[in-house]
Amino acid sequence: MPLQLYDLAAADVDRRFSPYCWRTRMALAHKKLPVETIPWRFTDKEVIAPSGQTRVPVLVDGDRWIADSWTIANYLEDTYSDRPPLFGGPAGRALSRLYSSLADTLVSGIFRFIALDILERVHEKDRDYFRGSREERVGMTLETLVADRDQRLLAFRESLAPLRLTFRAQPFLGGDRPLYADYAVFGPFQWARCISPFTLLAPDDPIARWRNRLLDAFDGLARAAPGYDA
Amino acid sequence: MPLQLYDLAAADVDRRFSPYCWRTRMALAHKKLPVETIPWRFTDKEVIAPSGQTRVPVLVDGDRWIADSWTIANYLEDTYSDRPPLFGGPAGRALSRLYSSLADTLVSGIFRFIALDILERVHEKDRDYFRGSREERVGMTLETLVADRDQRLLAFRESLAPLRLTFRAQPFLGGDRPLYADYAVFGPFQWARCISPFTLLAPDDPIARWRNRLLDAFDGLARAAPGYDA
Repeated sequence: MPLQLYDLAAADVDRRFSPYCWRTRMALAHKKLPVETIPWRFTDKEVIAPSGQTRVPVLVDGDRWIADSWTIANYLEDTYSDRPPLFGGPAGRALSRLYSSLADTLVSGIFRFIALDILERVHEKDRDYFRGSREERVGMTLETLVADRDQRLLAFRESLAPLRLTFRAQPFLGGDRPLYADYAVFGPFQWARCISPFTLLAPDDPIARWRNRLLDAFDGLARAAPGYDA
Repeated sequence: MPLQLYDLAAADVDRRFSPYCWRTRMALAHKKLPVETIPWRFTDKEVIAPSGQTRVPVLVDGDRWIADSWTIANYLEDTYSDRPPLFGGPAGRALSRLYSSLADTLVSGIFRFIALDILERVHEKDRDYFRGSREERVGMTLETLVADRDQRLLAFRESLAPLRLTFRAQPFLGGDRPLYADYAVFGPFQWARCISPFTLLAPDDPIARWRNRLLDAFDGLARAAPGYDA
């Protein structure tokens, strides 16, 4: 039985837009592991209950249910250790953890640009849940959150300076080839690309060029996903 | 002949406060390489001219002059490959680069709290150079730069969330033991500690606890340096 991944879907079932699921999709492709994705909506809590989690990604491998993108990456590295490495050794694994944490900050930062675009595209049954849970988290309406996004764009781009400096020196965070660190950071950008036409990155930004390289990886897996060329 | 390191000193010659030199000090200790530090001031450009650089750290190894903390780390790893590894393999080396870049952002962020404390402590001959070059860089007087530092402290601490998340999960960025990534990020905090009594981190912050572990490393090398217990 192939691996199965519960994968967040928009109203359009082919529009998959979880930053964390995208990490797992890329990690599975890196490991050359076929996967069957199961579209999942925010309110489908019960179907993933065996994972002990209420959020995706959730990976099912035979009778094992594994939740949380970082836990899944470690599971894949340990279980499929004969496949291409995601971390590149024990030091690489430890050093990859910050990249996973960095991406959480990226998700919060990017959300302030695309929150309304998400709301417009989620499944109707998810809409109230999405608005309610997110507005509680940010302490304001989604409309207020994104209202000044054009004025904040430059500061957001400047906040990405460490990534930009790195990509001026090497094509991937992992060096000449991508590693899990790349997928961890790519997830939030792919999330935005799949769900929002808003242009986060200037096209000549080294970060945009790195994103393009990952869009092309694995025969264009991420580029082929329904999204926007922003 | 032992290695020699040109090391930024304050008016008090024992107060060594370059964030980038501290990276190199820690990397040398990690490699168990003895080093003779040579106190250097901002305006001593000529003595390091053989390095082709006007800033420290500059390492002298026999007839080789090596400048720039990242270049020095790579030089040490390659030249002293039989010593404890700083990167933990090729993947670790590539993944360490972002940590080096992250610290540049940290230096800019921390400078906005400690700029005047530095000015008070630099050597008299450096004072005009320091104020002039830094005020040109930030586009305002140092007094204006730090004026609202107390109000900005919480936001600064929040900006460190990815580090904090990581240290909740593991003692060092490198895992169970520190690697160069740790020293790269530690440098800016040690810089602040050596030159400013301002309290950047809450004592119960996981980042402060990690800093304490590095202050204790190598028989307390960094803790023994003249500084403030802030």
